Amino acid sequence: MGLADSMPMRRDPRALAARYAQVRAATLALAAPLSAEDQCVQSMPDASPVKWHLAHTSWFFETVVLRPHLPGYEVFDPAFAQLFNSYYVSLGPRHPRPQRGLLTRPSLQQVLDYRAHVDAGIAALLRQGGGEALPLLELGLHHEQQHQELLLTDVKHLFSLNPLLPAWGDAGPHPAADAARSGGWSTFTSQEALIGHAGEGFAFDNETPRHPVRLQPFALADDLVSCGEYLAFINDGGYRRPELWLSDGWSTVMAQDWQAPLYWNLADAQQPRLFTLAGEQALDPAAPVCHLSFYEAAAYAEWAGHRLPTEFEWEAAVSRSSELRQGFGAVWQWTRSSYDPYPGFRTWTGAISEYNGKFMVGQLVLRGGSCATPEGHSRASYRNFFPPAARWQFAGIRLARDL
Amino acid sequence: MGLADSMPMRRDPRALAARYAQVRAATLALAAPLSAEDQCVQSMPDASPVKWHLAHTSWFFETVVLRPHLPGYEVFDPAFAQLFNSYYVSLGPRHPRPQRGLLTRPSLQQVLDYRAHVDAGIAALLRQGGGEALPLLELGLHHEQQHQELLLTDVKHLFSLNPLLPAWGDAGPHPAADAARSGGWSTFTSQEALIGHAGEGFAFDNETPRHPVRLQPFALADDLVSCGEYLAFINDGGYRRPELWLSDGWSTVMAQDWQAPLYWNLADAQQPRLFTLAGEQALDPAAPVCHLSFYEAAAYAEWAGHRLPTEFEWEAAVSRSSELRQGFGAVWQWTRSSYDPYPGFRTWTGAISEYNGKFMVGQLVLRGGSCATPEGHSRASYRNFFPPAARWQFAGIRLARDL
Amino acid sequence: MGLADSMPMRRDPRALAARYAQVRAATLALAAPLSAEDQCVQSMPDASPVKWHLAHTSWFFETVVLRPHLPGYEVFDPAFAQLFNSYYVSLGPRHPRPQRGLLTRPSLQQVLDYRAHVDAGIAALLRQGGGEALPLLELGLHHEQQHQELLLTDVKHLFSLNPLLPAWGDAGPHPAADAARSGGWSTFTSQEALIGHAGEGFAFDNETPRHPVRLQPFALADDLVSCGEYLAFINDGGYRRPELWLSDGWSTVMAQDWQAPLYWNLADAQQPRLFTLAGEQALDPAAPVCHLSFYEAAAYAEWAGHRLPTEFEWEAAVSRSSELRQGFGAVWQWTRSSYDPYPGFRTWTGAISEYNGKFMVGQLVLRGGSCATPEGHSRASYRNFFPPAARWQFAGIRLARDL
Amino acid sequence: MGLADSMPMRRDPRALAARYAQVRAATLALAAPLSAEDQCVQSMPDASPVKWHLAHTSWFFETVVLRPHLPGYEVFDPAFAQLFNSYYVSLGPRHPRPQRGLLTRPSLQQVLDYRAHVDAGIAALLRQGGGEALPLLELGLHHEQQHQELLLTDVKHLFSLNPLLPAWGDAGPHPAADAARSGGWSTFTSQEALIGHAGEGFAFDNETPRHPVRLQPFALADDLVSCGEYLAFINDGGYRRPELWLSDGWSTVMAQDWQAPLYWNLADAQQPRLFTLAGEQALDPAAPVCHLSFYEAAAYAEWAGHRLPTEFEWEAAVSRSSELRQGFGAVWQWTRSSYDPYPGFRTWTGAISEYNGKFMVGQLVLRGGSCATPEGHSRASYRNFFPPAARWQFAGIRLARDL
Repeated sequence: MGLADSMPMRRDPRALAARYAQVRAATLALAAPLSAEDQCVQSMPDASPVKWHLAHTSWFFETVVLRPHLPGYEVFDPAFAQLFNSYYVSLGPRHPRPQRGLLTRPSLQQVLDYRAHVDAGIAALLRQGGGEALPLLELGLHHEQQHQELLLTDVKHLFSLNPLLPAWGDAGPHPAADAARSGGWSTFTSQEALIGHAGEGFAFDNETPRHPVRLQPFALADDLVSCGEYLAFINDGGYRRPELWLSDGWSTVMAQDWQAPLYWNLADAQQPRLFTLAGEQALDPAAPVCHLSFYEAAAYAEWAGHRLPTEFEWEAAVSRSSELRQGFGAVWQWTRSSYDPYPGFRTWTGAISEYNGKFMVGQLVLRGGSCATPEGHSRASYRNFFPPAARWQFAGIRLARDL
Repeated sequence: MGLADSMPMRRDPRALAARYAQVRAATLALAAPLSAEDQCVQSMPDASPVKWHLAHTSWFFETVVLRPHLPGYEVFDPAFAQLFNSYYVSLGPRHPRPQRGLLTRPSLQQVLDYRAHVDAGIAALLRQGGGEALPLLELGLHHEQQHQELLLTDVKHLFSLNPLLPAWGDAGPHPAADAARSGGWSTFTSQEALIGHAGEGFAFDNETPRHPVRLQPFALADDLVSCGEYLAFINDGGYRRPELWLSDGWSTVMAQDWQAPLYWNLADAQQPRLFTLAGEQALDPAAPVCHLSFYEAAAYAEWAGHRLPTEFEWEAAVSRSSELRQGFGAVWQWTRSSYDPYPGFRTWTGAISEYNGKFMVGQLVLRGGSCATPEGHSRASYRNFFPPAARWQFAGIRLARDL
Repeated sequence: MGLADSMPMRRDPRALAARYAQVRAATLALAAPLSAEDQCVQSMPDASPVKWHLAHTSWFFETVVLRPHLPGYEVFDPAFAQLFNSYYVSLGPRHPRPQRGLLTRPSLQQVLDYRAHVDAGIAALLRQGGGEALPLLELGLHHEQQHQELLLTDVKHLFSLNPLLPAWGDAGPHPAADAARSGGWSTFTSQEALIGHAGEGFAFDNETPRHPVRLQPFALADDLVSCGEYLAFINDGGYRRPELWLSDGWSTVMAQDWQAPLYWNLADAQQPRLFTLAGEQALDPAAPVCHLSFYEAAAYAEWAGHRLPTEFEWEAAVSRSSELRQGFGAVWQWTRSSYDPYPGFRTWTGAISEYNGKFMVGQLVLRGGSCATPEGHSRASYRNFFPPAARWQFAGIRLARDL
Repeated sequence: MGLADSMPMRRDPRALAARYAQVRAATLALAAPLSAEDQCVQSMPDASPVKWHLAHTSWFFETVVLRPHLPGYEVFDPAFAQLFNSYYVSLGPRHPRPQRGLLTRPSLQQVLDYRAHVDAGIAALLRQGGGEALPLLELGLHHEQQHQELLLTDVKHLFSLNPLLPAWGDAGPHPAADAARSGGWSTFTSQEALIGHAGEGFAFDNETPRHPVRLQPFALADDLVSCGEYLAFINDGGYRRPELWLSDGWSTVMAQDWQAPLYWNLADAQQPRLFTLAGEQALDPAAPVCHLSFYEAAAYAEWAGHRLPTEFEWEAAVSRSSELRQGFGAVWQWTRSSYDPYPGFRTWTGAISEYNGKFMVGQLVLRGGSCATPEGHSRASYRNFFPPAARWQFAGIRLARDL
């Protein structure tokens, strides 16, 4: 399936140029509080250096948009093709992921020059109208927004391992308590829900095709699980009771010696603290619990006597109503659904065929969006996905139950 | 959900006694060609010694049936509770799985005595009618049949690592070529299929509840993929082309240096050979390919321009027709479905609640049954499951495609 | 250097035949209390199955003595050349060491038949006089004695991992308390000691050449460190004080969570228990402490304000006097000497060149002999060696200090 | 033993101040060609970031000299005590070594400020005469020189992993060919050599006490082994012939897939290339071979029909004569001696007791000095030491043989 086929609406080059400028500037704004050193280092193989995010998003535009579609475009540096390819096998060899943090060269300044070079290329392309490159350009912007969130989660992880506990900023993204918490549930009757992207806006291939899914009656919690509620789970021995856990989850708890969510500091049991992008702070019991693995989310649900929603229930609920609070903007919400292809799924064609499809095994779907997700990036049909042990994303819990 | 609730039909103690005798004898018959040494050793953490299978299945009857339900039953040896508990956390501590092969004591003879002791207990119970233990007794028989297949796959793995390439028997289970192979496809129209166990016969909790699933038009191959077809994939560079593989699959191919299915010997490219339970043999190009991981099955399907079926398509197809050849009795068939709970799924209550539910993450569903599956054990709604890299089971491929 | 050159004395074929019979029978006697299952399993890569010891020692005679030196000798089974080669690269491919325990075939009975076949060959050879094979035959007997001790240490390790804590025998070798313990020290003046084997008896290549070593004045403890003394070290926080440990030792303590010597059971702090070849027993405070790594021995010496002896001090002391108690027959004694070649060291020539030399890095020398060492096997110049973290040997501590 | 006891000569505060200034400036000069990013990253756990070297050497002066000996000294930042402690257990908790590269904060500028703060403290101390701190100050300078060499080896390793192959400088230290190569040997008769430091100059505790060692007649090669000679070893199958290797060495060759020294590029067999601190260059066959492990050095010696010298032979030879070429200034020379304590060895007292002694197991001694060793830092009795598999140091081969 061609990307353009999935996004058949007209695009306005001038509007895209404005949007391009806005998105690219937003990325730089996220990096602005950080030194060249901060932007260079990689804290674990799952995370990437900020500088790498800056370069890779530019590489994406250069490789997917400019080289095939801007006649006469001159590549900034041929070596970057390998250095900043993330996982696109069809686009040639790749620098090993765990070694991204070793790239002290090119320097941050060179990477910023690279961004400017690519920006100039995109501007030239759009002045010519853009033609069939426009859908790819739009994809590049959504891709860059995904990396904006990763940039924040990765630098948070890096700073959390520094004994000085540095802050990214005074008001780093952090899921806030919702004053309207009610403890209520929204109920949904049996239905054949239409799941997947509809309409003319952008969507990733993994959100298609739209298809009917039969749902049984269910209820979703109006609120996200809070830190205080999660603390009760911990205090009730949640991390010491294997019967609450999936088998692989319990193995992970044992092997990693998990005793609380990532970034929690329970050294003083009376004064729990939390590492955030604004440094370490007192834990707010009313705020949504965050930085959980799927395993922890599922164990909590078991302990609470409920379950996690399926991704279909979540989408159907959000599509129908605005009752659910903090569907977007606080934390991603783990679902009970494995990240499988939808019936009739086709990857995009060409290089971008590797964008989503090849990861469809061993991962779980998260729905919604977080405080670190760029405004307007997510939507009801959006499918985020991570392995069940991943904890460094802004991921929390919304409970479900059968009716 | 209580097990009895899921199997509300009447059971006849005398019929069960006969069936118990048959199943238990069948297990011993599988072990008969093996020496005490053969039955003691564990070839990898995923596999178990034959002696352990003999003891564990007896432990299951003792723990789940006899101790709670036979007044005056005397435990054979209290130490066995820990030694032969597989993974039931609620039933106390467990001997570590990777150390099952270190149990040179109790001796094989003691384990056989244990089996006889348990058999006598079951006979006594059934003479008294059995009462509410009957559903648990039936579960124990299905459980033992599962271990019959594992016993064979585990001893096959053990023998494959012995340079002497011993045979389990002259006519070890091996998936046979189907003389009726046609290369055809069976087509299925859009439908709301009812998926899951129906009726009065036994089923595991993971097959329930029966529920509707909307299917789009699809076709299933009438035949299983053959060794000859798979050889063409190998010869076309299948194991060297990352674009054919899921991302995790390709990582596994690289890390494990996979170049062919497990047990294939391509040392002489002109004369491929295969290790079987009857020793090493010439590879039969017409026989179903076997001992594949999910990753390999998915890569083959990609290469062939098709896909794997979902577990729902498979079940709907088998339920509707007998057109599909070798649905059962040759190889388990990998599906494209992650092993997730059905809508409204409830585990059984009590100790057996751990039977299936806690494994519902990170695994893929296989459907059908193999040459090593006991006659009558499987059924259309049966859900087998293994991690995507597992290769030592009798698992192969049936292709599907969209219409 | 040829083996014969290092052992130029005359050998009497009839005396050797008697000695051969005695040594070979002793090996079988050690295996006699064990079932075929007990003899088949391998508890860790460092250990070997008893059956493998039985076969490997026979393979050594077959490969080094019979095949080159007995005209017309028929190999028992050509496959055994690979299966039972331990580490002789020049003698062809080897079965991987960690997979020795997977060899359920050949059966124990076949291995016993192999022993008998080799014994017949040796008898035939000796009837012909033996000629230049005699030194190799004698080497084979010393080699078999080394494996007698390993057989016991390996089965002890295996049984220790079995929750049933089986006993090898009622009076398994165990280092006994010495009623004559005095707490005294023997002193030695500055001297140029002659170190290494002298005289006509057998010695391994690593004991040669004899050479002068300048020693400063020193003292050796008359007694071995006892379990009671070592318990005081534990109770004084020995396993929690990094300043007492070599850097690699402390890393190992942390990584392995060592809290006591191998086989100690401190679950009941008031009643320490010890796993032995005769099963678990109350710990005898007066008995020599045993099953220590070099790291533990060195940390204990540091705690006690003394040090470990060098291998040269140990040899000089034992050569001079009989004052030292339990030099042989209780536990091997870790020295502070790395296992380096002596000045002018030459390995034997031919296949047996790999016997000792290629292990001369990363190991420490132990001197003396243990309760599991065959009578008459060790001597003052004998150099045993193991990596510093090895604990499953009968190894303990004799302290030294400078004067 | 107190450090002062081992260095009883008078020290002149003014001379020390000049020397302090020179050594500290030399460190900064080595870092000068590097960006803040280059100085922040850690390429492997064995290596440290340049910034860490800059800070740690200052921490050493602050902790060992200033805090105990300069009244009124104000610590620059209390957090640095933990961040920049390398391995001194007695000086409190330490930041984990593998996480040194995560310290993007403190910034490089803060570390440079730290250095200036410490320099001011030292200046103040010396103005007061220094008193008993002088020996510790001198130790700190030798310590800093050791880190100067490590700084270079660590940044070389980092740059070697960057596909851009950056250069540290146009004339990076690199072992040069010796025009006077002769292929000759220097011979030495049997002697009782005095080994260890003598005289009034500085020495580390591991070089003491001076003691007699009996040497047999031997010869040392006048020249270091060259790249061309080593290439002949490679071309003769050196990395594919297990009989040439120590057992652990061969395991390492297999596990790491070694096929040439570190930093060699044999992609074009006709034009071997070498990564250096000045970037990748054509390999000079006449230059000393470098970046070898002990295992490779020993295998080469075996192949050449010779052996490595003992550390005693090396010291005796260098002490006697100036015949040996490139004893210092080209590459460190692996010896056949394990890094064991000398007879009567005592560590220094106090915090610096951990300087050397706790590493005396599992390492091999290297003698001489390299092109990266600061002028005047090494001496005939100097004992460098690394584990046998380490390759990122400037280490090569001088052959020896028995006479």
